[in-house]
Amino acid sequence: MIPTITAFEQSPDRGQGLARDMSVRWALEEAGQPYEVRLVSFSALKQGAHCALQPFGQIPTYEEGDLVLFESGAIVFHIAERHAGLLPRDANARARAITWMFAALSTVEPVIIQREDSLYLERDRSWHEERLPMVEDRIRNRLAELGNRLGDQEWLDGAFSAGDLLMVQVLRRLSGSDILNDYPNLVTYVARGEARSAFKRAFAAQLAVFTANATERQG
Amino acid sequence: MIPTITAFEQSPDRGQGLARDMSVRWALEEAGQPYEVRLVSFSALKQGAHCALQPFGQIPTYEEGDLVLFESGAIVFHIAERHAGLLPRDANARARAITWMFAALSTVEPVIIQREDSLYLERDRSWHEERLPMVEDRIRNRLAELGNRLGDQEWLDGAFSAGDLLMVQVLRRLSGSDILNDYPNLVTYVARGEARSAFKRAFAAQLAVFTANATERQG
Repeated sequence: MIPTITAFEQSPDRGQGLARDMSVRWALEEAGQPYEVRLVSFSALKQGAHCALQPFGQIPTYEEGDLVLFESGAIVFHIAERHAGLLPRDANARARAITWMFAALSTVEPVIIQREDSLYLERDRSWHEERLPMVEDRIRNRLAELGNRLGDQEWLDGAFSAGDLLMVQVLRRLSGSDILNDYPNLVTYVARGEARSAFKRAFAAQLAVFTANATERQG
Repeated sequence: MIPTITAFEQSPDRGQGLARDMSVRWALEEAGQPYEVRLVSFSALKQGAHCALQPFGQIPTYEEGDLVLFESGAIVFHIAERHAGLLPRDANARARAITWMFAALSTVEPVIIQREDSLYLERDRSWHEERLPMVEDRIRNRLAELGNRLGDQEWLDGAFSAGDLLMVQVLRRLSGSDILNDYPNLVTYVARGEARSAFKRAFAAQLAVFTANATERQG
């Protein structure tokens, strides 16, 4: 059964693939699984039909027959459990890869979202310029710790896993800033993720949505 | 093999059980599994021996023979996969419970941590009083959405699961404020979690650490 995911009708990042549907698209491509996409407008996000699928009015969702999931981490895990290539077979290595999935979404991403909230929701405040560097210091602390652990390894723990997939996507959210550049091994880590053919297919698919909508707006 | 977890030597919440070892203790109690605890001082958190286990210098960690895990979400999942009582057997219900685990830690907790960061790291700033209500509005938005989904159900999706365990613990972090009181069904949801005997055993165990250390400081 081909699953259906949801994504933004209008990409807020203009096709950079920073929204959370990108993680799910990438995981499906790593697994070699076809999928369908239903686009959701911003005005429909917080409305009944979408909230019945996603109580927080966000994307992506994942529908597969009777099953409805949300939370990109949970969807990526669902895909990773059912297909080869995203979680190691060895039980201990698998548990460690799952640890990195949670680390990406609950330890590294939240400080990066703090910066986005600051830029989107507090830019007009007189104290925004004073506060932004404080938030960026929190990001730098996490990146320094992550970079120390990664060292000169190719991936966070052995072979590429769903933990790396989510971590690379979380770090890609910094692409509008130069913060990541102070951590060269993290820069090459992200580049290594972006070089995967599954990433490229997922990226092209989400970019095509942006391009089609942009053409439509011009037409 | 009895696992060893780490917890704060000095509970920053004075024994309220808000730190992340509480989720792991609670999961182990739900699973009926004994465990050992190694206490870590604040000064040791960011040092080599602990960072070898936990790259971000946090607690808890989980050691079981050769296996070392961190991230409370990943540890709770590891326990839930191996013992009955924390994840449904039905595949779809299990995937939905995992969705709530991620929702707790990557959608609800981050806005609550923003408030804690504001209180701990920005209290001395002239704009703190102006900004705090903005952050609290973000929390209220999430709580309203969560409360709408919960409705009058006992738990988020059928039987109590690891998703409820993590969500209850995340909501408990608001116990120093009155924000949660505006969402009566979430208040009773938290109380329902706290009434579980496994919760009570876990709570008593972490409180005993605080009490013993407090007595030692007085002695």
